[in-house]
Amino acid sequence: MRVGILGAGQLGRMIALAGYPLGIDCIFLGGGQDSPAGQVSRILPGGLDDNAQLDALAAQSDVVTFEFENVPVDALQRAAGGAPVHPSVDALAAGQDRLEEKRLLRSAGIPTAPYVAVSEAADLGRAEAKLGWPQVLKARRLGYDGKSQRIVHSTAELAAAWSELNRVPSIAEGWVRFEREVSLIGVRGAGGQTAFYPLSENVHTQGILSTTVAPYDDPDLQLTAEAWLSALMNRFDYRGVLTVEFFHTDAGLVANEIAPRVHNSGHWTIEGAETSQFENHLRGVLGLPLGSTATRGHAAMLNLIARMPDPTAILTIPGAHLHDYGKQPRPGRKLGHCTLLRPTRTEALKALNQLKSATT
Amino acid sequence: MRVGILGAGQLGRMIALAGYPLGIDCIFLGGGQDSPAGQVSRILPGGLDDNAQLDALAAQSDVVTFEFENVPVDALQRAAGGAPVHPSVDALAAGQDRLEEKRLLRSAGIPTAPYVAVSEAADLGRAEAKLGWPQVLKARRLGYDGKSQRIVHSTAELAAAWSELNRVPSIAEGWVRFEREVSLIGVRGAGGQTAFYPLSENVHTQGILSTTVAPYDDPDLQLTAEAWLSALMNRFDYRGVLTVEFFHTDAGLVANEIAPRVHNSGHWTIEGAETSQFENHLRGVLGLPLGSTATRGHAAMLNLIARMPDPTAILTIPGAHLHDYGKQPRPGRKLGHCTLLRPTRTEALKALNQLKSATT
Repeated sequence: MRVGILGAGQLGRMIALAGYPLGIDCIFLGGGQDSPAGQVSRILPGGLDDNAQLDALAAQSDVVTFEFENVPVDALQRAAGGAPVHPSVDALAAGQDRLEEKRLLRSAGIPTAPYVAVSEAADLGRAEAKLGWPQVLKARRLGYDGKSQRIVHSTAELAAAWSELNRVPSIAEGWVRFEREVSLIGVRGAGGQTAFYPLSENVHTQGILSTTVAPYDDPDLQLTAEAWLSALMNRFDYRGVLTVEFFHTDAGLVANEIAPRVHNSGHWTIEGAETSQFENHLRGVLGLPLGSTATRGHAAMLNLIARMPDPTAILTIPGAHLHDYGKQPRPGRKLGHCTLLRPTRTEALKALNQLKSATT
Repeated sequence: MRVGILGAGQLGRMIALAGYPLGIDCIFLGGGQDSPAGQVSRILPGGLDDNAQLDALAAQSDVVTFEFENVPVDALQRAAGGAPVHPSVDALAAGQDRLEEKRLLRSAGIPTAPYVAVSEAADLGRAEAKLGWPQVLKARRLGYDGKSQRIVHSTAELAAAWSELNRVPSIAEGWVRFEREVSLIGVRGAGGQTAFYPLSENVHTQGILSTTVAPYDDPDLQLTAEAWLSALMNRFDYRGVLTVEFFHTDAGLVANEIAPRVHNSGHWTIEGAETSQFENHLRGVLGLPLGSTATRGHAAMLNLIARMPDPTAILTIPGAHLHDYGKQPRPGRKLGHCTLLRPTRTEALKALNQLKSATT
């Protein structure tokens, strides 16, 4: 079995490594030999705008998928001419536009922050009237990890922020007061089979995921979120992993973002679940039976950002698992992560602090 | 960090896959692009008798190791001219000669079967007198998986067997009546740090490992075997994984074979232990801290021999993990394995039967 993958970052790398034991070879497009995925798997030369290579990828693949949500829709459509594509082009497209994403969530009955579409100057006034302060102005397209978005506290700041975004079509979102951020990762396979990991609790720093602790044990929230993801996945006849990030507020869960792919907040599943999100994504897109999402204790995941610590400092901590993506250091860049498991949440949190100390 | 590996089979493949997350790249010599290791990692062209490639491998590696015990000593010595080699050449050499292996075990106080070295016809009479019937005649060199050995029940059979072995230097071993076969896998790192997995219980069919169930829980046997492996490893200032296979008899453990490498009876550690034997081998040879060998429940491993079953049949079983080595089918050939974990030994044995049914 061979899976063609658009994009060649760390998510692709971890998908490829999950595939090998199953006899699944991945082949990538969208990076060089030195990309995180290119280091561990076969990669075609060229970019995602190279139709000849998109055709070549599809021709060699049983199924084509993608590992980042800003893959051009055109590229995925081109690949779809030569092989089945999962998740569907429609699911990808919906997640690429923050306004469409909000509409999709609302139409599925999933709460979101209040919002105002901003496409002309007059919309800024509407945003102030409807949302108050602070609010968050985000470009509708090509944003991730807090890029292309600004928190604003006044009319002047809002106008300045929109100018900074070059007045591209944007969306203003009302501020959501939350106690914590959680995410749910689900997977859907052939014939509508679904499986869900437990909710994960995430901490972001400067818009970038810093830590995840899982499971976040709240059976009612879990059921609610699973029902929502099921509704979204059924709508697209979805195959593969889908992630939704939520704010947990006094009034329950409020959806923040959809990612039609494996997700940083699910990296703990490599060690912490019976089947990792990466393996289940492959099983889902290939139509193989989904694997168990049962957990193995309580997991804590720490992202390694900007600088790789001395591996010895991490590996000395009992049960600490290092994941190095093979990337060059750069400020704000995710270079790797580490995960450890403990029998209880309290112990996992304590070990997470130990990890933090060892890596700074 | 880069590790050069002599040999390119499934053991190498699983070492390479264990290395990637740690930022360790492996580079192989001794197989083609289509070998199990060559499919997932960089491999140099040429064989183990190619001094130029041995030099190139060593020049690119922080440390050189090997993944099968019949690597020519000359090749390892050549590589040792360019990079540190672990485990040591002496440890490799000792395991390649069944007579030297027996002497080594005895000298470390480790019980073995009674034996007689067979190098001339007169030795056959000595074997009959000392060992009785049945006995096992084995070539001293290049035997594994029951190859190059014969069970014999009479003077005539012994003579015929030695003729079949082309009268190469051999060893006759007295028959050991055993209740079960177990193995111990240990790892030794820099500064003499050691770690041991629990004893594994193995079933061989026609000389080839068929199943492993672990842990085999017997604290006294465990301590005894650990002390023996420690003695062996200390003697060679050993770095990396060492495996000893034992017969468990009425009188306790009797050592059968030493393998100075990761071992088929330790494949369950990928899912069943906090750190796999493959990762710990890399940690050991590179001088990184060893990882925890704590278990995650009871593991059952089934080898997939001669024919790969439909993966769907395996993946449907809850928690079953498939490992496909990417090899062409052939009678008697190990093509892959599968492992599952259960909370108790009884459940693991039951699930193993389910696995067997699903794969035949």
